[in-house]
Amino acid sequence: MSSPGPGLPAIGVDIGGTKVWAGVVDEVGEVLAEVHRDTPERSTRPAVVEDVIVSAVHQVLLDARLTASEVVGVGVGAAGFVSADRGSVVFAPHLSWRDEPLRDRLSGRLGLPVTVDNDANAAAWAEYRFGAGQGESRLLLVTLGTGIGGGLVIDGRVERGRYGMAGEFGHMIVVPDGRRCECGNRGCWEQYASGSVVLREARELVRAGGPYAEELSRRCAGVPQTLDGPAVTAAGHAGDAAAREILAEVGRWLGLGLANLVAALDPGIIVVGGGVSMADDLLLDPAREALRRHLTGRGHRPVAPVRAAYLGARAGLIGAADLARIEAGCTP
Amino acid sequence: MSSPGPGLPAIGVDIGGTKVWAGVVDEVGEVLAEVHRDTPERSTRPAVVEDVIVSAVHQVLLDARLTASEVVGVGVGAAGFVSADRGSVVFAPHLSWRDEPLRDRLSGRLGLPVTVDNDANAAAWAEYRFGAGQGESRLLLVTLGTGIGGGLVIDGRVERGRYGMAGEFGHMIVVPDGRRCECGNRGCWEQYASGSVVLREARELVRAGGPYAEELSRRCAGVPQTLDGPAVTAAGHAGDAAAREILAEVGRWLGLGLANLVAALDPGIIVVGGGVSMADDLLLDPAREALRRHLTGRGHRPVAPVRAAYLGARAGLIGAADLARIEAGCTP
Repeated sequence: MSSPGPGLPAIGVDIGGTKVWAGVVDEVGEVLAEVHRDTPERSTRPAVVEDVIVSAVHQVLLDARLTASEVVGVGVGAAGFVSADRGSVVFAPHLSWRDEPLRDRLSGRLGLPVTVDNDANAAAWAEYRFGAGQGESRLLLVTLGTGIGGGLVIDGRVERGRYGMAGEFGHMIVVPDGRRCECGNRGCWEQYASGSVVLREARELVRAGGPYAEELSRRCAGVPQTLDGPAVTAAGHAGDAAAREILAEVGRWLGLGLANLVAALDPGIIVVGGGVSMADDLLLDPAREALRRHLTGRGHRPVAPVRAAYLGARAGLIGAADLARIEAGCTP
Repeated sequence: MSSPGPGLPAIGVDIGGTKVWAGVVDEVGEVLAEVHRDTPERSTRPAVVEDVIVSAVHQVLLDARLTASEVVGVGVGAAGFVSADRGSVVFAPHLSWRDEPLRDRLSGRLGLPVTVDNDANAAAWAEYRFGAGQGESRLLLVTLGTGIGGGLVIDGRVERGRYGMAGEFGHMIVVPDGRRCECGNRGCWEQYASGSVVLREARELVRAGGPYAEELSRRCAGVPQTLDGPAVTAAGHAGDAAAREILAEVGRWLGLGLANLVAALDPGIIVVGGGVSMADDLLLDPAREALRRHLTGRGHRPVAPVRAAYLGARAGLIGAADLARIEAGCTP
């Protein structure tokens, strides 16, 4: 490849449990064009998942009126364990990938350099570069969705660990012999603090019935399985006590786990992303209080602020694109 | 100061809850001379604690037949929170220090450059440079003593966090509303996995009496308060079932907490130090098993080996001295 100009954009692709997002992103983190696809279900063959990615990349290039030679490369953020050399997805719970050599496969099909990273690492990088944590030397990101995604930026570098698997904060055990987690453990943090937990609790409350659940029940026409996260958040913002209680309870568990991470890592800023972070202070104020309450050495140390993510659902693709730019030799 | 020769030794001082150790350490981590002093009790004025350190440094120079101009500097490892600029001890639970400007005070009195670090950071550095973790890019150290000390080396650098307070692994909460900790929290890891826990359990068993406690009771002549850690470890090595059970139980809690740290940080090696690590596989085998059992993604990832520390109680002073050498411009 010829050396890319500093102003050339990159393509970011965020492969999550439900959506594949692709976007063309410029050097200041602006998304110039984007497309969404449904993530193929877990049983789908890897080649078909690749088809979806390749088609999304071609489409987004068309939408941005660019050719492949006018972007520096493609960065992929995937919800899964990524190998230390960032060539393969070792294991992705929501996909059929097992030691999937994604970088070379995609690079061959797209004719572009490809980098692969964990989706939360990419989102952490985006918030560090263009979002809530600009200028902070140590950024900790947690995203609350189906589970908890985690990313860590230390001194201007994504910290990926020895085997590329750092940042799996959601599977730190906070309750020994606690709730069963998909990962095979019991008591993982994400079983107490995630978007799924908000939904689980809210649906359970609707099922139980009674006047306390009235507002939540109204918002799903009495069918608990149709209640979604935005509805619970909206009920909370509208003042519903039950929704607020659920968000606060999840916030308290969030704060307890953050206190553990601050004890271990002492970050300069904590960024909370994912769908639930739309609840903003209904979630984050209880989290901040629990963090202060559970933090070792409190009173003798500065505590990192807890902020909602700035970049929303686009953080993953923005970060993945920017990491691809850096891999291509563009300075951050 | 004139530029030090690469071969000049440095002085390391380890200030723990019970002992102050000073040593002259050469560039390959060999201890050329060492002295011990009792740590003054918690109520002692800071100036008196400094007197002890200064006297230990002078004594160890005499013992090594060196003058102050023949060492590159003094590295201090202190059991406490150290400020990000490594000038002050912000808070030390076992000493009267509160925002104590230790670096400048000692430097003024000794006429030598002084660096200050957390004692477990210093020990982690020593194990990385000269001990159990040589050549590993990501080393995680836990030391089991009165509590749990923690240190982290990433890519040949001690990771100290934003405010110098990273590595307080012992105060990660593993049991919500669990045992009360001196730090003010409940359920801290060190309340379940430390030397103190081994002692607490063993003494309780002796107090409870019965044939199961016979061997432990014999080793302290029936006086539980006189039972010490080495006696419990010795009983375990001699085959006593009660001692082995206690060490294994602490080992299992150790492994659970390590699984959390591996989920978050994905280190290449885990080094376990402190007095209890003398129990070796009686402690570490159950820890390894619990780590494997509780680790997220097990079966899809390499797991860092868990090894006993090589450098024993000298790790802190060796690491502190080596960090002083690096601060003085000597290459690691």
